[in-house]
Amino acid sequence: MSSKSYKSLVEKFHRIGVIGDAIAFLHWDQATMMPEGSASQRAEQLATLSVLRHEILTKNNIDELLDKSSNINIEKNSWELANLREMKRIYAHATALPTDLVDAQSRANARCEMEWRGARNDDDYERLLPYLEEVLKLCREVAFAKSEALGLSPYDALLDQYEPGAKSKNIDFIFSEHANFLPNFLQEVMEYQRTLPDLVIPKGPFKIESQMGLGKKFMAAIGFDFDRGRLDVSHHPFCGGGSEDIRITTRYDIDDFSSSLMGIMHETGHAMYEMGLPKAWRYQPVGAPLGMAIHESQSLLIEMQVCRSRSFLNYAGPLMQEFFGVNNNELGIENLYRLYTHVEPGFIRVDADEVTYPAHIILRYRLERALISGDLSLPDLPTAWNDGMQKLLDIEPPNNRLGCLQDIHWPSGDFGYFPTYTLGAMIAAQLYYAAKLDISSIESEIEEGKFSTLMTWLNKNIHSHGSRFSADQLLNTVTGSSLDPAIFQSHLKNRYLN
Amino acid sequence: MSSKSYKSLVEKFHRIGVIGDAIAFLHWDQATMMPEGSASQRAEQLATLSVLRHEILTKNNIDELLDKSSNINIEKNSWELANLREMKRIYAHATALPTDLVDAQSRANARCEMEWRGARNDDDYERLLPYLEEVLKLCREVAFAKSEALGLSPYDALLDQYEPGAKSKNIDFIFSEHANFLPNFLQEVMEYQRTLPDLVIPKGPFKIESQMGLGKKFMAAIGFDFDRGRLDVSHHPFCGGGSEDIRITTRYDIDDFSSSLMGIMHETGHAMYEMGLPKAWRYQPVGAPLGMAIHESQSLLIEMQVCRSRSFLNYAGPLMQEFFGVNNNELGIENLYRLYTHVEPGFIRVDADEVTYPAHIILRYRLERALISGDLSLPDLPTAWNDGMQKLLDIEPPNNRLGCLQDIHWPSGDFGYFPTYTLGAMIAAQLYYAAKLDISSIESEIEEGKFSTLMTWLNKNIHSHGSRFSADQLLNTVTGSSLDPAIFQSHLKNRYLN
Repeated sequence: MSSKSYKSLVEKFHRIGVIGDAIAFLHWDQATMMPEGSASQRAEQLATLSVLRHEILTKNNIDELLDKSSNINIEKNSWELANLREMKRIYAHATALPTDLVDAQSRANARCEMEWRGARNDDDYERLLPYLEEVLKLCREVAFAKSEALGLSPYDALLDQYEPGAKSKNIDFIFSEHANFLPNFLQEVMEYQRTLPDLVIPKGPFKIESQMGLGKKFMAAIGFDFDRGRLDVSHHPFCGGGSEDIRITTRYDIDDFSSSLMGIMHETGHAMYEMGLPKAWRYQPVGAPLGMAIHESQSLLIEMQVCRSRSFLNYAGPLMQEFFGVNNNELGIENLYRLYTHVEPGFIRVDADEVTYPAHIILRYRLERALISGDLSLPDLPTAWNDGMQKLLDIEPPNNRLGCLQDIHWPSGDFGYFPTYTLGAMIAAQLYYAAKLDISSIESEIEEGKFSTLMTWLNKNIHSHGSRFSADQLLNTVTGSSLDPAIFQSHLKNRYLN
Repeated sequence: MSSKSYKSLVEKFHRIGVIGDAIAFLHWDQATMMPEGSASQRAEQLATLSVLRHEILTKNNIDELLDKSSNINIEKNSWELANLREMKRIYAHATALPTDLVDAQSRANARCEMEWRGARNDDDYERLLPYLEEVLKLCREVAFAKSEALGLSPYDALLDQYEPGAKSKNIDFIFSEHANFLPNFLQEVMEYQRTLPDLVIPKGPFKIESQMGLGKKFMAAIGFDFDRGRLDVSHHPFCGGGSEDIRITTRYDIDDFSSSLMGIMHETGHAMYEMGLPKAWRYQPVGAPLGMAIHESQSLLIEMQVCRSRSFLNYAGPLMQEFFGVNNNELGIENLYRLYTHVEPGFIRVDADEVTYPAHIILRYRLERALISGDLSLPDLPTAWNDGMQKLLDIEPPNNRLGCLQDIHWPSGDFGYFPTYTLGAMIAAQLYYAAKLDISSIESEIEEGKFSTLMTWLNKNIHSHGSRFSADQLLNTVTGSSLDPAIFQSHLKNRYLN
């Protein structure tokens, strides 16, 4: 296929992709290298490049080119057809909103995010409320405008920004299945844990250079290509950079190596996805990662499925002892496994373990659905939050700082993002289960520090497809079924009740 | 003044300036952080942003806006008028060349630069010749096209890219004055040096952290604002980054702290210029640095005039001893002064001392003038080079590796750049002389590690003017005369014969 209009679209989206890369590096620099006094000039650079990218998308008769390209002879299931589909989706999102709404939203989100930092510190929900009301009001306007443009329900239109094709109808079902499963299961886990030997928290100090060296050793073992990427330090760990140059970050705590190390493994999972995207479609929409749920599935597959397993710890434990020069029970494999699979309900999402994490997400998902639909109003949010925590985890936050004030997502206008965390966890379980069925030696190889078989499998089945198929198509092809919470639940049972 | 057309120009050039900043950070990242395997994606980002910037300049009826703005009522000597002048110059350079010439040149330069690396290593001028012929041919086409567009001689049109307003007629005069002065003076210096106690080269190792710590201490003393800038490592030291975030680099040699330290001082001089540019005109052409000669004058004023002086070394010597934990003759102030003012004719420009450096530049200036005019052909370059070295420094390179193959400038198409190095050195001498006349305490303050009086003077007289005045206007205002090589010569006599 080689129509003139399609070719012209490819050129324009290539340019958009390259600008996106430049933006990504400026973001990375901001989080890792930039001195604090330079924030406003960086904001200006990012804003200017974003506007340029938006203009290329909206001021280049892209709609006309898309129309013309729809009529041309194109092979079913081809990369090109998928590329056109993604171009249309991106264009629809970009043009769904009037400019003044985009401006108003970005200003309101920035103001509210700023206010949130203080309000959270002071546990002062009332102070945040008027700002959050404005954010929610504009976000609902966005949801309704995109709903019309995309032919989706308002909430699904928001979801589609983060996880293309995801439908709240399916998520409702999956999450309610899991919400039914969770309370009893959690009780069983807590009872089972009481029968185990006490967990001993490893005592530091653990030299930062040793933590870094160990992290890089595991990254390299998993397949991270340091000729096309880096590991650095930032306040909030992330996977950034751009094509051919993936940059992950972590932060170190000299008294606790364990969370930084798992953080590095998590970001390495993201990085392997980015590094494995199809080179031939670099900078094209179809060459991009599928969405946040699949992306999160790749990080959680490495962090949760692989690195918190006994197989991995059999390989990693002796290396930890070697790097930290410690050879005691604290870093013994049994205690490490206890450490990395310890379950304890708590108030804070980012500190939650694998078992209780979905409860935090299900709560947020239900609340944001109700906020967007109008069934819940913001003044009632704290009560609704605390009720939900009570039901799902049987604990009640003593204040809003440990409750509905803890996350940045809503204050910065990110409604529709939360569910991707738990969808990712479930997809990870389903993929890893399928991989082990396909290739029975995977776990024994990991025990020897060999990850290439697993990574080749992931590359072949997930990474190399970019956005060619929907997440649902991909899951069906690779695992034989759509997302099935039962597989995740069975993983949890195997790990936490045995 | 507030005409609509001028306002529109300001907006467009603002955007061009911000994109330029983004490009600068990607360059910095490439030189300091980027893994090697990512070179091609970075090249693509840089090319895309450059094209975008060029398009904003050439596809936005800027010419029409410039015409309209010429007729409006505008105050003489105002910032706005100077801004318009710079806009016109930038636009004239950008539109002087047909696109295919720009493309051909950038490809030829890149190819030749690549070939040069191997040819220099193998001392193989013949291998480079066909590539260099192509580069020169295209550069001459550029010179003639710009000559027509700018109303300058072909060589002056090239000069104008690096040093706006500079004229080869003046440079001819200044350089021939200096070429007459140099041979006898050099002989006197060599004789005088023989009467001095032997120079003892300080022996390392000098810990890299100590070198870095010392460099940062001097940077901070001079006034470098670490809240708006950084010091890092790169293979070729430079001053980069962008507005409000100046990033300088160095490279360390554990056996020799002296060159890295002076390198840091040199780049700090550049950085102070960038940090002191007028904030109100950030991103506008008139807010930019004047040109390469004035820029180099700021780095050389710090490195050569200040930091190789006895006053500075009286302050710095004890700190060097403290940071390196050494207290011997090698780091005694007398030996440090001998070290930093040691003169010895050599083949390599970048290793040259303050006295012999101009000879390297005068040679290159004369040769490139002749290459552009057609009076010299490339096959005759090696002989002409060696003859010139013989005449100016009384030494003859044993091969082309130590001769005409040593610099990257010509292979990468940079004709017209070389003279700015020595113009900068001379301007530095003239400015520092004027500063000391204005404020007699400057040297005694430096002896105590206080630089604020000097830096305030430089900011008031140079940095804060951006590109409002020409270099010649600025020199006349600040020092009472145009560039006068006699002041530089008198500085050399004072330093090297006393």
